[in-house]
Amino acid sequence: MNKRKKIAIIGVGLIGGSMALQLHEKKLSSKLIGVENNPQHAEEALEAELVDEILPLDEAIKEAEVIFLAVPVNVQVDLLPRILDKVTDQIVLDMGSTKADIIAAVQKHPKRGRYVATHPMWGTEYSGPKAAVRGAFEGKAVILCNKKDSDPDAVEWVEKMYTKIGMKLVEMDARAHDLHVAYVSHISHITSFALANTVLEKEKVESAIFQIASAGFESTVRLAKSSPAMWVPIFLQNKDNILDVLTEHIDQLVKFKNYIANSDQENLRSLIVEANKIRRIIK
Amino acid sequence: MNKRKKIAIIGVGLIGGSMALQLHEKKLSSKLIGVENNPQHAEEALEAELVDEILPLDEAIKEAEVIFLAVPVNVQVDLLPRILDKVTDQIVLDMGSTKADIIAAVQKHPKRGRYVATHPMWGTEYSGPKAAVRGAFEGKAVILCNKKDSDPDAVEWVEKMYTKIGMKLVEMDARAHDLHVAYVSHISHITSFALANTVLEKEKVESAIFQIASAGFESTVRLAKSSPAMWVPIFLQNKDNILDVLTEHIDQLVKFKNYIANSDQENLRSLIVEANKIRRIIK
Repeated sequence: MNKRKKIAIIGVGLIGGSMALQLHEKKLSSKLIGVENNPQHAEEALEAELVDEILPLDEAIKEAEVIFLAVPVNVQVDLLPRILDKVTDQIVLDMGSTKADIIAAVQKHPKRGRYVATHPMWGTEYSGPKAAVRGAFEGKAVILCNKKDSDPDAVEWVEKMYTKIGMKLVEMDARAHDLHVAYVSHISHITSFALANTVLEKEKVESAIFQIASAGFESTVRLAKSSPAMWVPIFLQNKDNILDVLTEHIDQLVKFKNYIANSDQENLRSLIVEANKIRRIIK
Repeated sequence: MNKRKKIAIIGVGLIGGSMALQLHEKKLSSKLIGVENNPQHAEEALEAELVDEILPLDEAIKEAEVIFLAVPVNVQVDLLPRILDKVTDQIVLDMGSTKADIIAAVQKHPKRGRYVATHPMWGTEYSGPKAAVRGAFEGKAVILCNKKDSDPDAVEWVEKMYTKIGMKLVEMDARAHDLHVAYVSHISHITSFALANTVLEKEKVESAIFQIASAGFESTVRLAKSSPAMWVPIFLQNKDNILDVLTEHIDQLVKFKNYIANSDQENLRSLIVEANKIRRIIK
């Protein structure tokens, strides 16, 4: 980790931009190259000095020693094989919210070893380079998937890099990853979107309904501001796990509904006492 | 509002304790009397100097000029008529999360005019006097219900008091209040409780599932730490509105489920674009 590297970041939005800030701050990069299809985002990324220059994909691949992929997960599945086609000994990593499909897309690629599958557990409900946050990722978990399929030197650099930016390394196979994130990330986004829509529907007949909304409502609904370009592909790539968790969550809501309908104090109390055990996890 | 008043707070927990801090800070009270059935809470309230002394209910009513009711909503319905039986010209107000049942409980009481029905839109997922927060309520909305049934002098003091502690006055009849809060407060608690239970159930087979939980999950699930003693009575008193909003919310979740099951990108995108309109409300 002594030598700084030339790093390309494909997709300089919330995640790519925040990563650029960290790589620079932790002196991990000798040069930061952005690849960005959206001209406005490209301009904003340069203005905010997230990257040193914006280059076309092929030039960026050629110049970089490490390539970060920070694009929506549907784009990743298309892009990663094409990037591996062109790498010699560069390290390639993605930071996407699903892992099984992207790993499957390059499983038999001759350059599979150059790719390290990762998922840093950080994000916000905003998007684009202007949403980039300084000091993001610090203290959070990062999941590395199917490490044994990546070359040791690539894994070593990636692990040292994440450790240096303050992340806690967690290992998991891709299937386990996709199941776990369905429960502790993806479902939260669906409940927030659905809750926003529930209340926005009601606002059509009760126009002042948001006048009295407070912090509790805001907390449960803030993720509803998240971008469809990022989340539709995640929901579709992680379909089976998400359908499982959604079915279970709806069952839990139906329990509440039935106990409330029957004014069943004892069972309602038990459901809440059970839910309170989340205090063990969230201080 | 020139003259400070002797104020009794029935229930010195999260809400009562936070209100005590505000009344003291804004120089609204000449003396703060706590009434607290839980001996540990009584002791904690005195230690934290939330109140000047703890008195039995009857003595507190006799000594106070203003009486704040800050107990669970099922207790309110029992207690408010008994308090009004004993007041002469004191002002009595409650701060509960439901309004129709409590107002109905005293509608024909000869002292109905001394009572002002209010709901300051602030709270946290914690409870008890140790959870009291300095500067709570500031900048939040407070709802006054069925003002015309309260004596003008009582309304005047209550409105000036809430204004002085920085709250924005909103008027609503009790039925409208209960409907509105079902949508912008009560449902958020149910979705959080249900989400906590969904993931806690999964933890039984996937023990490391919380290792990777991030801020988004925490945000949607933090209300699941809320107390059953407070929330079971709210859900039962506001049963009809809550069943309506729960039914609508489950319908919204089922839409997501169906579109995901059918890999229907276009409709999923539309649901999220719709949900993004919450940006108009929550910055």
